[in-house]
Amino acid sequence: LRPIEWLSGRVRLVDQARLPHVEAYLETADYRELAEAIRSLKVRGAPLLGITAAYGLALAAREPSGGSLEALLAQLRRAADELRATRPTAANLTWALDRVLRIAEGAPSVLAAVESVEAEALRIHEEDVAVCRRIGANGASLIESASSVLTHCNTGSLATGGYGTAFGVVRAAFDEGWLDHVYATETRPLLQGARLTAWELQREGIPHTLIVDSAAGSLMRRGRVEAVVVGADRIAANGDVANKIGTYSLAVLANENGVPFYVAAPTSTIDLDAREGEAITIEERAAAEVTSLAGTPIAPEGTPAVNPAFDVTPARYVSAIVTEAGIARAPYGETLAAQVRTEAASHG
Amino acid sequence: LRPIEWLSGRVRLVDQARLPHVEAYLETADYRELAEAIRSLKVRGAPLLGITAAYGLALAAREPSGGSLEALLAQLRRAADELRATRPTAANLTWALDRVLRIAEGAPSVLAAVESVEAEALRIHEEDVAVCRRIGANGASLIESASSVLTHCNTGSLATGGYGTAFGVVRAAFDEGWLDHVYATETRPLLQGARLTAWELQREGIPHTLIVDSAAGSLMRRGRVEAVVVGADRIAANGDVANKIGTYSLAVLANENGVPFYVAAPTSTIDLDAREGEAITIEERAAAEVTSLAGTPIAPEGTPAVNPAFDVTPARYVSAIVTEAGIARAPYGETLAAQVRTEAASHG
Repeated sequence: LRPIEWLSGRVRLVDQARLPHVEAYLETADYRELAEAIRSLKVRGAPLLGITAAYGLALAAREPSGGSLEALLAQLRRAADELRATRPTAANLTWALDRVLRIAEGAPSVLAAVESVEAEALRIHEEDVAVCRRIGANGASLIESASSVLTHCNTGSLATGGYGTAFGVVRAAFDEGWLDHVYATETRPLLQGARLTAWELQREGIPHTLIVDSAAGSLMRRGRVEAVVVGADRIAANGDVANKIGTYSLAVLANENGVPFYVAAPTSTIDLDAREGEAITIEERAAAEVTSLAGTPIAPEGTPAVNPAFDVTPARYVSAIVTEAGIARAPYGETLAAQVRTEAASHG
Repeated sequence: LRPIEWLSGRVRLVDQARLPHVEAYLETADYRELAEAIRSLKVRGAPLLGITAAYGLALAAREPSGGSLEALLAQLRRAADELRATRPTAANLTWALDRVLRIAEGAPSVLAAVESVEAEALRIHEEDVAVCRRIGANGASLIESASSVLTHCNTGSLATGGYGTAFGVVRAAFDEGWLDHVYATETRPLLQGARLTAWELQREGIPHTLIVDSAAGSLMRRGRVEAVVVGADRIAANGDVANKIGTYSLAVLANENGVPFYVAAPTSTIDLDAREGEAITIEERAAAEVTSLAGTPIAPEGTPAVNPAFDVTPARYVSAIVTEAGIARAPYGETLAAQVRTEAASHG
């Protein structure tokens, strides 16, 4: 399953808003269309947003810019600003854009810049798949034999370059024969769990059960869940985790029931500039996502609703944060910074 | 708003499965149709189920039974068994059926039995409205000035004889000018919060905001909720509370955030025969309620799901249980039994 592909000058992506019932693709050479696809959640998942944004710059680099390197850089920065503004919470978006811009800024000519931007976008994509495999291998060691694991939202192939973060841990643990069962929360309002995670679990042949979000606590209390594994959209320097709305509740319920609560994400999700969760901007989305379900209105007309797309889980509820660099545990203020340094060093 | 009415020999009820978009009624003289309406959630809400079941017996009493008192009683017991089996968790169902059967068993003749069954059903209905008003008055005193309260599922006019339990507390506190705002959880899978509570709040002009179930914890953490008030389907002797799936999560999250967690229910919901929550049967409903919405599938075909309709909240998370007899606090083993005795005494 390839959620996104670079087709020499065009980007092709799975339209995730239409899954699982329709497998449709969006193909475009215009980064503005990619930005719109991000806003409308045709493409989503923090690591995949980073990849998409990087390809967006590769598309922007191919547009006529007037001939000078300065003009091209200005054009890339404008495109980066538009792509960056699409979704404020995902750290990987900014991380990827900054990484590609830095490469462009170091290029000696327009042609070199265009080529290096494209190469860097492809590298970000390839690296993500490898990074996810390492996250999976690192995280699988946390899953005990014959476990039932609960996960939230979608963190699989569809959320990344193609392997998954928390889903990568699930996948790796299942491949090792350690994992017996996955409980997937449906993840209202946009049902990424019901639509996407259930679909990926079915394709992979991993035994699973779908539940409404509010049934997770009761399952934990009845001893049916041995671990919770979720992804992240941004991790603050102190280990506070911004992730899909409902993650905080799962973390509190896991702690209350002695169930370990793991976060799996690439180091590119760690934002050392955000000292703590309070510094993370939480995206507020349209009320209509709450007042309707799968296009059908479910509340009286005119019902007011709030729709925070994410919440912040304080670090004290997080048993471990799994990245490609290893398993970080409290005090996260030290261990996360060390992981980021390790990864930076490994890339020279 | 009258969710149910006795029309001398027929029962008329609002078809709640079609609200809020269609205001339709079901009218029947056949208790079997009432049983089916209960099973399919056309009528729901623990106190209203008690009233509905009582009217069911009033309908059954009018059917030809052969002439003898014994034959009539046998017919009523068969009808009671069918009505009792519709939904296993709601205590009020059994409570009302037993109360009506007891009256029939004390009647001196067939005619007297038929008349007394009908009179008792009407009395149960009338009493419920009065009981809810007392619950509201008792509970309102717990709501501090200018509060935002969060409630779950529907506990309003549509769940009772016509005033509400937890919703009655909300209503009474709002009428006193103490309540500023209500957060209503949508309550997946059947959306009683989005469909019914939002509708009642709109009709009453009480300022409100709808949220997905999994956003409640984050709202509490951000200090936006001063109290949680929910209803109950069955309360064990030790204060453990069976209520709509998700209630347990709200209770844990409220405790974690120092938010008081109140349960409002008539004493008829207290089951002193259930020593603790473990003794309460939790109804498991069809997976299709999770995997689809109003006939629209939201998960891949063949996705397995579990759908427990209720969960059990251990008494230690419950700040107070409000009944028509007053406000019970821990140790519930003593205070709940005292409230049941008080109510029994007040009815002679």
